[in-house]
Amino acid sequence: MKYLATEIIAKTRNGQELTEDQISDFIGAYVAEELPDYQMAAWLMAALIKKLTPQEAYWLTNTMLHSGEVIDFSDIAKPKIDKHSTGGVGDKTSLILAPIVACADIAVPMMSGRGLGHSGGTLDKLDAIPGFTTQLDLHRFRKLIEDHGMAMIGQTPTICPADKKIYALRDVTATVESKELICASIMSKKLAEGIDSLVLDVKFGSGAFMKTLSDAKDLAERLIDIGVRGGKRVCALISNMDQPLGRNVGNALEIEECVSILRCDGGADMLYADNYQLSLELAGTMIFLGNKADSVEEGVDIATSILHSGQAYEKFLEICKAQGGDIDALPKAQHQREVRIDQSGYIAEMNTEEIGRAGIEIGAGRKYSTDTIDPTAGFVFHSKLGDKVEPSKPILTMYANSTSAFDVAEKRIVNGIKVQKSKPQQPPLIAARIEGGH
Amino acid sequence: MKYLATEIIAKTRNGQELTEDQISDFIGAYVAEELPDYQMAAWLMAALIKKLTPQEAYWLTNTMLHSGEVIDFSDIAKPKIDKHSTGGVGDKTSLILAPIVACADIAVPMMSGRGLGHSGGTLDKLDAIPGFTTQLDLHRFRKLIEDHGMAMIGQTPTICPADKKIYALRDVTATVESKELICASIMSKKLAEGIDSLVLDVKFGSGAFMKTLSDAKDLAERLIDIGVRGGKRVCALISNMDQPLGRNVGNALEIEECVSILRCDGGADMLYADNYQLSLELAGTMIFLGNKADSVEEGVDIATSILHSGQAYEKFLEICKAQGGDIDALPKAQHQREVRIDQSGYIAEMNTEEIGRAGIEIGAGRKYSTDTIDPTAGFVFHSKLGDKVEPSKPILTMYANSTSAFDVAEKRIVNGIKVQKSKPQQPPLIAARIEGGH
Repeated sequence: MKYLATEIIAKTRNGQELTEDQISDFIGAYVAEELPDYQMAAWLMAALIKKLTPQEAYWLTNTMLHSGEVIDFSDIAKPKIDKHSTGGVGDKTSLILAPIVACADIAVPMMSGRGLGHSGGTLDKLDAIPGFTTQLDLHRFRKLIEDHGMAMIGQTPTICPADKKIYALRDVTATVESKELICASIMSKKLAEGIDSLVLDVKFGSGAFMKTLSDAKDLAERLIDIGVRGGKRVCALISNMDQPLGRNVGNALEIEECVSILRCDGGADMLYADNYQLSLELAGTMIFLGNKADSVEEGVDIATSILHSGQAYEKFLEICKAQGGDIDALPKAQHQREVRIDQSGYIAEMNTEEIGRAGIEIGAGRKYSTDTIDPTAGFVFHSKLGDKVEPSKPILTMYANSTSAFDVAEKRIVNGIKVQKSKPQQPPLIAARIEGGH
Repeated sequence: MKYLATEIIAKTRNGQELTEDQISDFIGAYVAEELPDYQMAAWLMAALIKKLTPQEAYWLTNTMLHSGEVIDFSDIAKPKIDKHSTGGVGDKTSLILAPIVACADIAVPMMSGRGLGHSGGTLDKLDAIPGFTTQLDLHRFRKLIEDHGMAMIGQTPTICPADKKIYALRDVTATVESKELICASIMSKKLAEGIDSLVLDVKFGSGAFMKTLSDAKDLAERLIDIGVRGGKRVCALISNMDQPLGRNVGNALEIEECVSILRCDGGADMLYADNYQLSLELAGTMIFLGNKADSVEEGVDIATSILHSGQAYEKFLEICKAQGGDIDALPKAQHQREVRIDQSGYIAEMNTEEIGRAGIEIGAGRKYSTDTIDPTAGFVFHSKLGDKVEPSKPILTMYANSTSAFDVAEKRIVNGIKVQKSKPQQPPLIAARIEGGH
C-alpha cells in the first residue's frame, strides 16, 4: 500500500474526505488480500456512521467497478439500457419490461441478483423456468444481446470482485445499512454492464428497504449522482411498496403473472394493474432514455403498443428458448390453502415485509444462502389495499410443495393486515420521478 | 455466543446501550477466539464514534478485568495502593513515590508498562538498571510485597488477556483514540492488581496524550467513575506536561535524577523542583488514601519526612537488590553534545511531544515494538520554561552511545522551542484534584 491503512481509517473516522488515490489504494489492497478484514471492517463502520461524501461514494463506486472486468458494448450500435430495482415483494417488472424494450431497438444487458432478505430476486424467478440458465459467461452474454437484443443473466465472478468481497464482510459486521455503501455496491455492478443509461425503481413502504418516501428519494438522488458522475443518464421512479406488486408472490407464480401480462390475457391489465402500469412506465422511460421517443409519455405509448402487438411476448419466448428455458413446463405446487381474515371491512394496511418473510417460511426464499428454494411456493392475493374483505372470502391462497410452514406463514400475514370500516384512500403507485444527466 | 454478534455491533452503532451480559458475551467470545477480529474491529469503531456510556465503560472494564487472573491481596493487612500516570516526557515519579509510600506502611503492588508513542514507560527505565528484573510471576510479586511492601514488575500474561488482545487490534484499526476504551484498558489492568485505592496522575499539555486541561479532567472523571463503580477509592491529580518533568529524559538519566532526589542530594529539591513536588504530592495522596494521614496535606508532610529521613532511599536500594538490580552499575553514554538555541530571551513554549520523539530518534524509546533501546540515550535540560536563554548557553545536553541521530533530534527539539523577550507566566504544576469513592 502507498498509504498507511490506519491513516485512511482515521481520516474517515474523523469525518475528513479521502482522496481518489487513497480510496483506490485501500480498496485495491483489500482485493489483493494485502489489507486484512479487520481494517476494512473498521473503515466500513466509520464510513457508515460518518457518511461518505457524494464525491467519495463515486470514487468508491469507480474503484469497485474497475476491480474486475468492465463490459464494453460500444461496438453494438443500439443504445444499451438496464433497469435496477431496490427490491420489493412481488416485484417482477424486469421480466415484462426487458422484452418490451428489446423490441424498441434498445439492447437490454440485464445482470440480476438473487433474493435478499424479505425481497425476491430476478435470478430466483428465472430459475423457476425449467432449463432456463442464468450462469453464462460474458461471451455468451454478448452473443445473446447481439442476437436477441437482450439477455438475463447472473453476475459473473469477474464483475466487481471488490463488491463481492466487501458485501460479504458488510453482512457480518452490521455495516449493510449505509446508503453510501449501498449506492456504491449497486452502481458499481450496473456501470460494469456496459450500459449508456439506467432506469431506477426505488421503492418505499412496508415492503421496501426504504420505509419512507423521503428516504427513497434521498437514495435515488445518491444513485443518480453516482451515475451522472460516471457519465450516464439515469432516471428514477419512486414507487410505492406498501403492498405486494401485482397479485402473485413466489417464483413460478410470478412468472405466471408476467406471462399473463405479456400474453395480454383478457383483464390482465386490470387484475395486475399496478404491475402492468409500473412495467410500462419503466419500459417507457427506458425507451425515452434510448432516444426512441421524445418524452416519457411517448415512450410509455410505444411500450404499450409493443406489448399489445404481441411482439414482447414473442421476444420473451425467444429469449427463454435461447437461454434454454421451457416456459410450458412451469412447476405447480402440490398443496394449497386459502387464507381468510376474521373481519369485515376494507384492507387499510399490509405489512409487506412480513409477507416477504412468510414467503421465506414456505420456501419461496432463503433464510440462509445455502437454503434451497421451492419454486412453486408463494401466495396469490385475491384482495389488495382498499379492497373489501369479509370472513367468508379468502384474501389469498398459499401454494407450496409442503404444508409444514403454512400455519406460521398464515399467522405472519394475517397479523400484518389491518382492516377498517371505511374505504381508505389509495396512495399513488408512482410518487415521484427524478432525472439526472443529459 | 448467546447473542448474535451483528446484533451487538448494530446496537452500539445505533447508539443504544448494551447490557452487561451482552458485553461479557461479546468480549468473552473474542478472548475465546470464537469472535473474529473483523467483528471486534467494527464494534470498536462504533464504540469509538458513538461513545460508550459510563455504565458500559464500567461493564467493559469489569469483563476485561475478569478475562484473566485477578490478584487477591486481602490476606495482606496493609492498605494496597498504586499510582497510574497517563504518561508524559520525563515522567519518573513512580520510582520516587513507591519507596516513600512503602515506608508509610502501605503496600505498593506496581505493575507497569513499556513506553508508548512519545511517552516513556517505567519498565524501560527499570531495565536501565543492570540486572533489575521486572519479568516476575505473581508468586514472586506477592513475595516481594510481603517482604518489602512494594514491587515494580511488568504485567504478566495472565493479567487481562482481553485487554492485550483488544489493544493490539485497536492499534491497527485506528481505534486507540477512544476515551472510553482508554479508560477500560487502564482500569482493568489496575483493578486486577489487587489494590484498595488508586491515585491517578492525569497529564495535559504539549507532552501529554490529552492536550487540554478540560480533556484531562474529563478523562480523570471517567477513570474515577469506573474505579468507584468497582468499589475503589480513586484520587486524580491533573498535572501540567507542557515541558519535560524534571530535567532528565531517557532511561538511565531518569534513574539518576530519581536517585539524586531519593538521596536528598543538596539542591536536588530545587534542581528537579517539579518532579520533587509532584512525587511528594502523589505520595502524600496515597498516604492519605491509605488512612495513614487525615488529609492530603498531612500525607505530603509524612512523605516529605520519609524522604528526608533517608528511609525512602534505603527502601529503593532494598527493592533494587531484591529484584536483582545493581544501581552502581548504571551505564553512561559514550557520546554527548550540547545544544544551543540561536536567540536571547525566555523560553515560552516547548513542544514536549517533539522532545519525546527526538528521544526515540536517539534510541531512548522505540519506533517499533521490536526496536532495542539505548539505556544511556537521553537529554539533560539545563533550561526549562520561563528560564533565560542566550546563544552562548547550552539549553540541553544530548547523550547516547551513537551520534547518528543527534542532528535530527537537535532539529526536532530546537524547532519546538519558542523564545520571547519578556518573562512568561508559569502555569501551576498541579491544575486540579478530583476525588471519588469513600
